[in-house]
Amino acid sequence: MAAPWMNCFDLEGVFVPEIWIAVAERTGIDELRLTTRDIADYDALMRHRIEVLDAHGLLLRDIQDVIATIAPLPGAREFLDELRTRQQVVILSDTFEQFAGPLMAQLGRPTILCHTLRVQDGRITGWRPRLADQKRASVVAFQQLGYQVSAAGDSYNDTGMLTSAQVGVLFCPPDAVAQQFPQLPVARDYEQLRTAMSGGQQRLDRTMSA
Amino acid sequence: MAAPWMNCFDLEGVFVPEIWIAVAERTGIDELRLTTRDIADYDALMRHRIEVLDAHGLLLRDIQDVIATIAPLPGAREFLDELRTRQQVVILSDTFEQFAGPLMAQLGRPTILCHTLRVQDGRITGWRPRLADQKRASVVAFQQLGYQVSAAGDSYNDTGMLTSAQVGVLFCPPDAVAQQFPQLPVARDYEQLRTAMSGGQQRLDRTMSA
Repeated sequence: MAAPWMNCFDLEGVFVPEIWIAVAERTGIDELRLTTRDIADYDALMRHRIEVLDAHGLLLRDIQDVIATIAPLPGAREFLDELRTRQQVVILSDTFEQFAGPLMAQLGRPTILCHTLRVQDGRITGWRPRLADQKRASVVAFQQLGYQVSAAGDSYNDTGMLTSAQVGVLFCPPDAVAQQFPQLPVARDYEQLRTAMSGGQQRLDRTMSA
Repeated sequence: MAAPWMNCFDLEGVFVPEIWIAVAERTGIDELRLTTRDIADYDALMRHRIEVLDAHGLLLRDIQDVIATIAPLPGAREFLDELRTRQQVVILSDTFEQFAGPLMAQLGRPTILCHTLRVQDGRITGWRPRLADQKRASVVAFQQLGYQVSAAGDSYNDTGMLTSAQVGVLFCPPDAVAQQFPQLPVARDYEQLRTAMSGGQQRLDRTMSA
């Protein structure tokens, strides 16, 4: 009898738009457009973002106001709702608790494991990584808890998670990521994602029971 | 800066009635009334239950028909909904995927880590523990992933989880369990549970930042 499946997903680019790009658009600050698709070193990226916010006098509240106007990607809620009737889901994201709340509410509040911002007098002063390489570590933890893991994400910071999972799928990745990880199948919409994940699961379950 | 909190809960006796007692009532089979409150060895308890079902010719479908008529305990959904706006929640249960679905839907589908029944031709033939002592192992896994854990449960099979968590609370426990674990605070309703869990969290957060 095969082990049950846990499904792990990145958040931004998979179920919601890139939060920092939305912030860049609303604030008109182009320097905030960079994401992990552009800079693979997340700590360097975050230090840059915090410096830019500070230089423009933007507070956490300003960012939260922008996030409150972001809607999930079309079909994201339905994809998650259907999957959650059958299997367990956990979101693994490098966003922050302070950012995630309003987006999670719109997605039906799946469990999310992410990071925490340091905030002083409303100013974002830094961030607290819950632990290094948390996406990969979370996949390994669920495997040690007796699950097989299938996972999907779109960018560099997801590849540790995707290559550690029994089934890993790139969802609408930039070309550079897809080329660097040719072993990972690519899905371009939720129907393809559902097919790639459940197909991969069924192949492994058959192998286990054969 | 203190680590974020993950909240882990038992399911039966905390958010929903004991499933097997409901099955005993509907089917009139008194032998199905025993729970982990009565027999601490869960494997022995499950072997007994499966023998009794088989002797009465009851199939998984019959049990699922009963479970579909069970409602969460009054206030359970509201307690979870409020907590999930602030912190992450995972249910750790020794029930089975095949039983949990309709109850999870009524509770807003929090993530649940539980076990799997073996089923052949509709007959429950055994069960697959995801791993031994999964509740305690899950608490330790979340701690290793950078969380502080607060947890609540009502019976013997929760005490590993409750004593491993940074904050552990007994919710409406039988007297024997409360007496055997005097170090664990007891909550008798959701308001007391909320107070005990958030009070414990705040004390530890203050200690960490002091």
